[in-house]
Amino acid sequence: MKPQKVAEGILAGDRRVVARAISMVEDGAPELSELSSLIYSNTGWAYTIGLTGAPGAGKSSLTQQLIKAARSRDLTVGVIAIDPTSPFTGGALLGDRLRMQTHATDPGVFIRSMATRGHLGGLALAVPEAIRILDASGRDLVIVETVGVGQIEVEVAKSADTTLVVVNPGWGDSIQVAKAGILEIADVFIVNKADREGAERAVRDLETMIGMGLDDAWAPPVVATSATKEEGTDTMWDAIQAHRAYLEVEGRLLLKRGARLLNEVEEMVSQSLKERAAQLLEADPDLVTSLQQRRIDPYAASAAILARAATR
Amino acid sequence: MKPQKVAEGILAGDRRVVARAISMVEDGAPELSELSSLIYSNTGWAYTIGLTGAPGAGKSSLTQQLIKAARSRDLTVGVIAIDPTSPFTGGALLGDRLRMQTHATDPGVFIRSMATRGHLGGLALAVPEAIRILDASGRDLVIVETVGVGQIEVEVAKSADTTLVVVNPGWGDSIQVAKAGILEIADVFIVNKADREGAERAVRDLETMIGMGLDDAWAPPVVATSATKEEGTDTMWDAIQAHRAYLEVEGRLLLKRGARLLNEVEEMVSQSLKERAAQLLEADPDLVTSLQQRRIDPYAASAAILARAATR
Repeated sequence: MKPQKVAEGILAGDRRVVARAISMVEDGAPELSELSSLIYSNTGWAYTIGLTGAPGAGKSSLTQQLIKAARSRDLTVGVIAIDPTSPFTGGALLGDRLRMQTHATDPGVFIRSMATRGHLGGLALAVPEAIRILDASGRDLVIVETVGVGQIEVEVAKSADTTLVVVNPGWGDSIQVAKAGILEIADVFIVNKADREGAERAVRDLETMIGMGLDDAWAPPVVATSATKEEGTDTMWDAIQAHRAYLEVEGRLLLKRGARLLNEVEEMVSQSLKERAAQLLEADPDLVTSLQQRRIDPYAASAAILARAATR
Repeated sequence: MKPQKVAEGILAGDRRVVARAISMVEDGAPELSELSSLIYSNTGWAYTIGLTGAPGAGKSSLTQQLIKAARSRDLTVGVIAIDPTSPFTGGALLGDRLRMQTHATDPGVFIRSMATRGHLGGLALAVPEAIRILDASGRDLVIVETVGVGQIEVEVAKSADTTLVVVNPGWGDSIQVAKAGILEIADVFIVNKADREGAERAVRDLETMIGMGLDDAWAPPVVATSATKEEGTDTMWDAIQAHRAYLEVEGRLLLKRGARLLNEVEEMVSQSLKERAAQLLEADPDLVTSLQQRRIDPYAASAAILARAATR
């Protein structure tokens, strides 16, 4: 299928073509750059929400609630659920995804899980591209759900306009949350499973921590939800809208998205340069031996490779 | 202090100099490359153990147990505890570190926490260098303890000869462990807090998952411990030694370390190239505007920047 055809299908909102295009992103297909330039002028309309938090925090259930909230307001939704690729998991995670089947027959909802086949750079580049595809296909809202709380998630959250960080009462105390390094990326905190013991304390702890670190104009609100009991959904929705309204004044959203695009280009460029570095290393088969025999140290080796890169 | 002096201090095992050298690594001091080349020929002796797992899994207590086990066998130990840098945490994590104070007066033990001030590349480079400093200072064993289960931890674990992945019973089911993407990096699994309910099940689940994904000659053993009750330490120690023995036949350890060094050089080279890319982006102030106004897409922008990089 030619990029031109794929682009047309995306712009027409053809679900099968959209799914195919996202597979192209996953695989890093060579036609991507052409496809990207064909749809790019039709992007920038969708609002993007990122959902991150520890495994088991209830992100999939919250995504379902968000879909419901959006649909009841007549907004179309696209969901990208990031799946880690592991020889151990295989299809195991699909179970989570199945919980979203409630919306499977609704044409206003498109759900797609995406494997993290590549490395960090790969995913950091794949997610914005997949968002643009859903955006160009006419989705009002794109939700990106990630699996964990590590560096990948922080990278992925950068692709969102509003990032929700989900914690649970008893999912470790405040310090544990801070340890995960995800406090800074939250625009809204969700304390999910709020029917459990310790929910009020978790809300209070987060609010205290937010107060400590605050130097922005935006103070991330803390919202208590119980996704399985469908409680707190409207408050969560309102918090997202409040953040969106905050971004939409004084050109903040434009600024945020501009910085994101620049970051993406920088990542693309450095990925290419990284490949060049790998090629240069490969061209020097004695390097490992020299390093192992301590005849050359890593700094000196890297300087030698860089000198070679400059003279090419 | 001149690199020559620092190197001498390290080789003499001077604790204050070692601490200072690790600060240089944290700060990315310009003298590092000289220091690195001065001590490099004295490295490669220490055996490195990586400890990773979810926040709160009990890594610090296990580290303490490992220190004890090593000291009772007359081995000297160096510990690097990776601290995330966050405006929210400040010195909060030092509390964990204090628990290690049991060994604070033992000259055979050197404990140092290291902040992740830089980005991923920075830490991926800083940890191997810090390990080499402890190695050159005469430590028999170097333990690297990380805080979370994300990409950074996976990167850091690559610096270790034997990586322990710590889970808890009830820390989420097997799927949650798999989700965190840390199954592949484990040489030994530790089910800590094994006095809690569900420990046997956690051990069994892990063993099943290991059986599923196995295509290596080494099957990661699963060891149940209770670090606070000091149970299981010897079994853990033996599992580490078994893995070490496995690595030491057929040149596996040499191969593993060689690949690691090469990876480190590659990372150094690509970091330098990345900086070059950032400079090129900065030199083009209209780029953001062009991207925002959809006059150029990220792929085309990156190609343009790369073309410029090649002609420099």
